[in-house]
Amino acid sequence: MPKLWNETIEEHRRAVRDTVLEVTAALVAEQGLRGVTMSRIAEGTGIGRATLYKYFPDVESILTAWHERQIDGHLQELAALRDRPGSPGERLTAVLGAYARIQQRRHGHDAEIGAVLHRGEHVAHAERHLLRFVGELLGEGVEAGEVRDDVAQDELAAYCLHALGAAGGLRSQAAVRRLVQVTVDGLRPSP
Amino acid sequence: MPKLWNETIEEHRRAVRDTVLEVTAALVAEQGLRGVTMSRIAEGTGIGRATLYKYFPDVESILTAWHERQIDGHLQELAALRDRPGSPGERLTAVLGAYARIQQRRHGHDAEIGAVLHRGEHVAHAERHLLRFVGELLGEGVEAGEVRDDVAQDELAAYCLHALGAAGGLRSQAAVRRLVQVTVDGLRPSP
Repeated sequence: MPKLWNETIEEHRRAVRDTVLEVTAALVAEQGLRGVTMSRIAEGTGIGRATLYKYFPDVESILTAWHERQIDGHLQELAALRDRPGSPGERLTAVLGAYARIQQRRHGHDAEIGAVLHRGEHVAHAERHLLRFVGELLGEGVEAGEVRDDVAQDELAAYCLHALGAAGGLRSQAAVRRLVQVTVDGLRPSP
Repeated sequence: MPKLWNETIEEHRRAVRDTVLEVTAALVAEQGLRGVTMSRIAEGTGIGRATLYKYFPDVESILTAWHERQIDGHLQELAALRDRPGSPGERLTAVLGAYARIQQRRHGHDAEIGAVLHRGEHVAHAERHLLRFVGELLGEGVEAGEVRDDVAQDELAAYCLHALGAAGGLRSQAAVRRLVQVTVDGLRPSP
């Protein structure tokens, strides 16, 4: 059955949009933020400048859209780990490990974009979402007796996310695993 | 015995300099960063503008000097706690507690100045100093069997300072104490 015309247009637009985001992120990674202009993005995407301006008004709005998509992807990755089988403690460790690896990457490849964009409202929103998300998982851990119950879950969630921010300065995956272990050890109920 | 002329001048200069720093910090706290000009600082200090310019070329250099003095004061406070009697673990907890309270204050009263200045070279220098400082104290803790020995001390130091950064979002002293407790629990040797 052929697709409806509207659906086809919608798909086409999404494909163009996605390509613009990819091309822009790649250009910034190659040439730094300052070297990237709307003309170069249009050229790299293979569309005209006039068409590009129908999608985005400027480079910053493209980077913001790219960053929002990155953050959404990260949140989905963490949600998938939360929803896997296993005890709350196991799933918490998996989620915190993935979060630490995201922090590590963020300070590598994507550092320049992140530094520019990391004070937007969408970031604050994602951080609140993440705190709630981790807080709920900690609550399950408390129920299961795997997480300490003498400190409120929102405080523990803030502790986790801050502590794992140290992954930004770590080079090896082994060091990130050790950081996750130390952070999780701080969450254990006293023996 | 009367002081040497040079010493008296030196003391006078230091007093003026200190007053300029205090007045500027107070003006920023009252009126925000944008409202503060060299003229207002001269007025508040009770010296002429021409004299003020002999000390500092602009508002930013005054704030940087003020911030450096703040950071020095913090490092001295932490060093004093490290040098008190007690086991390495007790002194470590005292140092980390003081650091957490500094983080909490920094996000309150001094937040605006801090946000502007917190990416200077003097801050990076102080952070490296602090990491080494906490790392050494952790080393003493390992020797005494009070700190885990399965993770390198520089990694544990980075964990501590990041985790305690969560104090910036905490309102009560009790919450800060709980954060320090959780962070320190992550450092314990496995039973």
